[in-house]
Amino acid sequence: MSKIDTNSLFSSDRRSLAKAITLIESKLDTHRKEGQKLLEEVLPKTGKSIRIGITGTPGVGKSTFIESFGLYLVSKKFKVAVLAVDPSSPINGGSIMGDKTRMELLSQSKSAFIRPSPTAGSLGGVSQKTRESMLLCEAAGYDVILIETVGVGQSEIEVASMVDFFMVLMLPNAGDELQGIKKGILELADSIVINKVDGESINLASKTRSHYTSALQIIHPTSFWKPEVQLVSALENKNIDCVWDMINRYHKEALKNGEFKDKRTLQNKNWMMKLVGEMLDIRLKEHPQVKISLPTLQEDVTKGKTTPYLAAKKVIDTFFE
Amino acid sequence: MSKIDTNSLFSSDRRSLAKAITLIESKLDTHRKEGQKLLEEVLPKTGKSIRIGITGTPGVGKSTFIESFGLYLVSKKFKVAVLAVDPSSPINGGSIMGDKTRMELLSQSKSAFIRPSPTAGSLGGVSQKTRESMLLCEAAGYDVILIETVGVGQSEIEVASMVDFFMVLMLPNAGDELQGIKKGILELADSIVINKVDGESINLASKTRSHYTSALQIIHPTSFWKPEVQLVSALENKNIDCVWDMINRYHKEALKNGEFKDKRTLQNKNWMMKLVGEMLDIRLKEHPQVKISLPTLQEDVTKGKTTPYLAAKKVIDTFFE
Repeated sequence: MSKIDTNSLFSSDRRSLAKAITLIESKLDTHRKEGQKLLEEVLPKTGKSIRIGITGTPGVGKSTFIESFGLYLVSKKFKVAVLAVDPSSPINGGSIMGDKTRMELLSQSKSAFIRPSPTAGSLGGVSQKTRESMLLCEAAGYDVILIETVGVGQSEIEVASMVDFFMVLMLPNAGDELQGIKKGILELADSIVINKVDGESINLASKTRSHYTSALQIIHPTSFWKPEVQLVSALENKNIDCVWDMINRYHKEALKNGEFKDKRTLQNKNWMMKLVGEMLDIRLKEHPQVKISLPTLQEDVTKGKTTPYLAAKKVIDTFFE
Repeated sequence: MSKIDTNSLFSSDRRSLAKAITLIESKLDTHRKEGQKLLEEVLPKTGKSIRIGITGTPGVGKSTFIESFGLYLVSKKFKVAVLAVDPSSPINGGSIMGDKTRMELLSQSKSAFIRPSPTAGSLGGVSQKTRESMLLCEAAGYDVILIETVGVGQSEIEVASMVDFFMVLMLPNAGDELQGIKKGILELADSIVINKVDGESINLASKTRSHYTSALQIIHPTSFWKPEVQLVSALENKNIDCVWDMINRYHKEALKNGEFKDKRTLQNKNWMMKLVGEMLDIRLKEHPQVKISLPTLQEDVTKGKTTPYLAAKKVIDTFFE
C-alpha cells in the first residue's frame, strides 16, 4: 500500500480518503501502525463536523432517508460522509444493508462520500474502525458525518456513543410497532423520525407521533433537549428540511450551554477506558493458564460448587502468578 | 471474633446469622478469609429462597410496605429476611433509610431477620456483601429474601442483577411522577407496585395504573412474563396478598419453563466475570507507573492531543512492562 498523501486528504480528495480508511481497517500490523501514525497526524484537523447517528430496522427506509437527507445537505453546500456500522456482515458473509445498489444519486455527488461497512471482529468491534474513519472524514473536510447502523446486537449503543445527535427511524404504524422497539433504544434517541409518512399512512402517522411523544416523555430524564418526533417522507422529500432544522437547533443550544463539547469529551474518555478494559480482557483470555482454568471455574460457579468471588479470585491469581 | 457455629446457623439462629454477616462484612483480611471459607461450607444449603428486590424513591413508603408484606409472609409461615442496599450511608455517615425505627413490628417477629445496610467502598460495591449476606440467610433457612434499595447511583441495577423478581414502588400521582422515573428503571421491573392507594388517592391510582401499564408495554420486549402493575395500600394492608400471588405466579411459570434456573446461572456467571473485571481494574489502577501516566493520558485524550486507542495502548504497555 502506497503512502497516504495528507495534502490530498485535507483537500477532500475522495480517493485519498478511501485509501486512508482502508489503511486503518487493515489487519496487518504494519498497516495498523501506519494508520495510527496517520491518525495522530490528522488529529488537529478533526472534530469540526456534526456527527449524526441513524438507526432503524430493515424496511424502515434508512437508505432512502439518507439519500434524501444527504442530497438536501449537499444542496445546502455541505460535504456529507456516510459511514455504515453493520455488525451483520462478518456473520453471514454478506451485508444486510446491501451496499452496492443503495443511495445511487447521493453516491454520484462529488460532495458526498459513502463508505460500506468494515468487517468486524477486531478490538472494540466495528466501532473502533468507524470512529477512526469518522476522524479521517473530518480531516478531509466533511461537514456532516452520517453514521448508519442496522441495529444488530449492541451496534446502536456503539453508534450513539460516538455521535452528537442520535436518530431512530420508525414506521407510521403505531400500536404493534411499539412492542418491537429494542430495549433501551428510546433512551438513546435525540429524535424519532417517522418515515414513509405518505399516501395512506398520513392518518396513522399522527397517532403514532403522539404515541412516541408520550413514550419519550416517560423515558427521558430532565435534560436541556427534549427529544422530538418528526414525520417525514424520504420518498417524497417531505419534511427533510425539518429534520435538519431540528439538528441545527440542537447543535446551537448544545454549543451554547457547553453540552456539545462535554459530550464529546466524555465520549472520548469513556472510549479510552473501554479500550483499556478490552485490551486487559484480551490479555487475560489469551493467558495460557487462564485459558485452561476459566471454563472449569465458570462451570463450578454455574453448578454452585464455588462462589463467584472465589472463582474470580482464582482467575486473577492465575493471571498474575 | 469467635468462630461461627454452622449448626446454629443452619437452625435459623438469628444471632449466628448476624455474626456470620458481620464476619463477611469485615474488612480485616483474616475475617475475609474466614468468611469466604464459611461461604464455601454453607454453599450447598443455599439457593432455596425466593429473592425479591424492592426499590422506590424516599417517601414512597418502602418501609411500611416491607413491614406489611413481611408480616403477611410471616403469617403464612414463611421465614423472611430483609437486607438493605443503601449506597448513601458511606457518603453522609448516616443512612437515608434510617434503620432503627423502621419495621418495628416485623423486627419483633421471630420469623423475620432484618439487617441494616453494610457500608460500601469495597470490591463490587455494596452488592458483593449483600450477595454473600443473601447466601447466609438462605443457609439459615429463610424462605423469602427481600432486598431493598433506596435507588441511589447504580444500586437498582445491582439489586435487580441478584434477585429473582424485581419490584418498583411508586406513588399514585400519575402525570408528574412519570417524568421522575430514573433512566432504565422500568426495564428492570417485573412489577410496578403503586403504594398509598388509600383515601383520596384511589381515583388517581387507576389513572396511574393505565399510564404505567402502557409504559411497560412500550418498553418491555417479548418475554414469558408481562410486568404487572399492582395497586396497594401498605398502611391499610390492602392488596398485599395480590403482590404475593403475583410473585407466586411468576415463580411457578419461571420454574416450569426453566427461566428461574437460567436467570440465576446467568447472574452468577455475570457476577463472576464482573468481579474479574473489577479485580483487574484495581490491579491496573494500583500499578505505580500507571498511577502516574493515566491522568496525563486521559487529559491528552480530552484535549484531542492523542486518540483514545493510542492512549489506551500506552496504559496497557505500561502495565505489562
